Amino acid sequence: MQKLTASLIIKNASQLVTMHDPKKIGPKTGREMNDLNIFKNGAVAVNGGRIVAVGETKDVMKKVELAKRVRLVDAGGKVVTPGLIDPHTHPVFAGQRSAEFEMRIAGKSYMEIAKAGGGINSTVESVRKANRKTLKENGRKILDRMLSFGTTTVEAKSGYGLTTKDEIKQLQAIKELNEEHKIDLVPTFLGAHEIPPEYKKNPDEYVSLICAEMIPKVVAKNLAVFCDVFCEKGVFTPRQTRIILQTAQAFGLKLKLHADEFHNTGGAELAAEFGAVSADHLISVGDEGIHLMHKEGVIPVLLPGTTFFLGLNMDAPARKMIEKGLPVALATDLNPGSSMTESMQMIMTLACLKYKMTPAEVLTASTINAAFAVSGGDKIGSLAPGKQADLVIWDAEDYREIPYHFGGNLVESVYKKGQKVR
Amino acid sequence: MQKLTASLIIKNASQLVTMHDPKKIGPKTGREMNDLNIFKNGAVAVNGGRIVAVGETKDVMKKVELAKRVRLVDAGGKVVTPGLIDPHTHPVFAGQRSAEFEMRIAGKSYMEIAKAGGGINSTVESVRKANRKTLKENGRKILDRMLSFGTTTVEAKSGYGLTTKDEIKQLQAIKELNEEHKIDLVPTFLGAHEIPPEYKKNPDEYVSLICAEMIPKVVAKNLAVFCDVFCEKGVFTPRQTRIILQTAQAFGLKLKLHADEFHNTGGAELAAEFGAVSADHLISVGDEGIHLMHKEGVIPVLLPGTTFFLGLNMDAPARKMIEKGLPVALATDLNPGSSMTESMQMIMTLACLKYKMTPAEVLTASTINAAFAVSGGDKIGSLAPGKQADLVIWDAEDYREIPYHFGGNLVESVYKKGQKVR
Repeated sequence: MQKLTASLIIKNASQLVTMHDPKKIGPKTGREMNDLNIFKNGAVAVNGGRIVAVGETKDVMKKVELAKRVRLVDAGGKVVTPGLIDPHTHPVFAGQRSAEFEMRIAGKSYMEIAKAGGGINSTVESVRKANRKTLKENGRKILDRMLSFGTTTVEAKSGYGLTTKDEIKQLQAIKELNEEHKIDLVPTFLGAHEIPPEYKKNPDEYVSLICAEMIPKVVAKNLAVFCDVFCEKGVFTPRQTRIILQTAQAFGLKLKLHADEFHNTGGAELAAEFGAVSADHLISVGDEGIHLMHKEGVIPVLLPGTTFFLGLNMDAPARKMIEKGLPVALATDLNPGSSMTESMQMIMTLACLKYKMTPAEVLTASTINAAFAVSGGDKIGSLAPGKQADLVIWDAEDYREIPYHFGGNLVESVYKKGQKVR
Repeated sequence: MQKLTASLIIKNASQLVTMHDPKKIGPKTGREMNDLNIFKNGAVAVNGGRIVAVGETKDVMKKVELAKRVRLVDAGGKVVTPGLIDPHTHPVFAGQRSAEFEMRIAGKSYMEIAKAGGGINSTVESVRKANRKTLKENGRKILDRMLSFGTTTVEAKSGYGLTTKDEIKQLQAIKELNEEHKIDLVPTFLGAHEIPPEYKKNPDEYVSLICAEMIPKVVAKNLAVFCDVFCEKGVFTPRQTRIILQTAQAFGLKLKLHADEFHNTGGAELAAEFGAVSADHLISVGDEGIHLMHKEGVIPVLLPGTTFFLGLNMDAPARKMIEKGLPVALATDLNPGSSMTESMQMIMTLACLKYKMTPAEVLTASTINAAFAVSGGDKIGSLAPGKQADLVIWDAEDYREIPYHFGGNLVESVYKKGQKVR
């Protein structure tokens, strides 16, 4: 047997959580989500940024030949998992909205907050005024924090520009950050995040602008992989959403949808009809929506940080989705208005406490299932030969400590493409 | 005017939050909690571990003379506050209880968890088996994390030994950690944390052991400042609590009380009767208890992390206490069973969201009021001439960002007695 060369070996992990089921390609659905495929006293061998072997330390050591300049890392007493993946974020913006947070706590209404200069339009205003460099610097700080909390791949949306120029400015900042930062970004065009103030009286005109000008330009400049729409009462109607999704699909973009967040507007059904990769939020999704998502393979991306931060007692029916066989994924929804957190660890704790997901399920939802939610499941999200060596060593002996130990950061170190980056 | 010598000056802070009302000594009560005494473009000058001047940067610079080896720190665009104080924690233990966290999420009852080897007794068993060195190493790791999250003084309870020998072992570990670690610890004897298994049939005998043996020995060895009792249905009755408090007081210990957590058993009233420094938890406190605490100057220490972590929809009546003029303080309640967090930042966010406390109130509750809850208000908890130079520089322009930006760590650096320790 020819031996595999290894330039990095992380060994003796108390638990090497691979998330990899050798019998199956695809996200983990239903009960599989609770199965993490763990090697005790495990090792992962890496060469050239890719994984070459995983298993028990003694087996991996037999299989590999050490490269001349090999790096051996002892993970004794520690858990090793795939790098976390955050499949729904809005990380490139300007300004902060802590004054709005304070007003909301004091019981001020959405309208009062908007009148006082808060709400999404305040961020739109700041982003329109900011130049690309500022947006990049702000985004870089957020990505640095994400990486320090164990996240190695992030979906990143535009949606605070809401003019062709400003949406492209945001997407270009995302593109450059993707080139410069250790974290990999998956860019999503979200021109349909809100009706901008100047189109409030004629939202269909804004939909036309998105379809006739923004999508073609974004695609021509190769600035997005996904197109997303905020389908919700008072934002984009199902009819308008359909028009945008059709156009985006025709232009070759993959689809995501902000679906059934506060009201069941048929968002999940639309996502299924269009074969969207994911439908996100889903607090108010109905049984029919769940059924159709299951049938069409749409991944539900749940965002428990948002209702937590907004102080709402509304939770997505996560257990029902898992029982119906859906591959639930989790994300931070990082944004300045409704979920100001970079930490997927925080989101895992919230999903355990609010959604009654198990520690195993939340880890699945933050790795392999999140990978498929950004169409990256072939490359990231699990530890298996051939996959990218994105992984986290945790200051914990048991993976269950990750959501249990809350509000902090249990990351010991982070590897991206085989390189130690934290 | 003779100038004051300064060996450290932190200047140009966007907000220097002093928490100091020059007209008043004591914790901030009621509406005062919302007033942080902020200097814009502020500076704090330090010499020999103590603060010598605070104010606007230009005024402070006029007042002081630079020492030969002065350290000048530019806090431009940043908030500076007193170091955070955590006035209720159980930081010295062995083992972790993430399996119990998982069982609770799955809906297992308290009894089922206890049968499966969970619950407080599992920690008692681990602590009894552990030697002092192990307890210290475990505690040190927790203190390191607390410091990294901006906490500079911590109240630390025993209560997992429940034999004279093991309680003293825990308190000695706390004493040595206090000597070795940058964080200052305020030790509390909590032999009355739980009825140990071997006394379940005769709890009064355990109360006698506490009073006749533990308290005298703890006091003789000078191992505690406070004595605390868990007064609750199924734990220590008001009658037993009274006996313990009387004894502790006679031996010169100050008092704290786990009061009215799940049931109103008259804990707050007892705390008031005995002139306890604080009554903690208080989820189920009644109007009479609040009235008497106010009358006797008992500080309510609220622990929102605990109900959050236990998944309970029970919240202490924080707003009512503030409106009645009480000086609310906050703490992590760090412990392996019901609140596994080191972060006072997390607790501040939870207090905003669950208790509807304002960002200013939660910061007051985590600094000056927490200082008085550990009888340290003359020395720590605010930034004023003569006080210890314990402070945090935050990666934020506005103090409201501290609870707003959740699940992470906005600390840029931490100073303890004028020394940079993070």
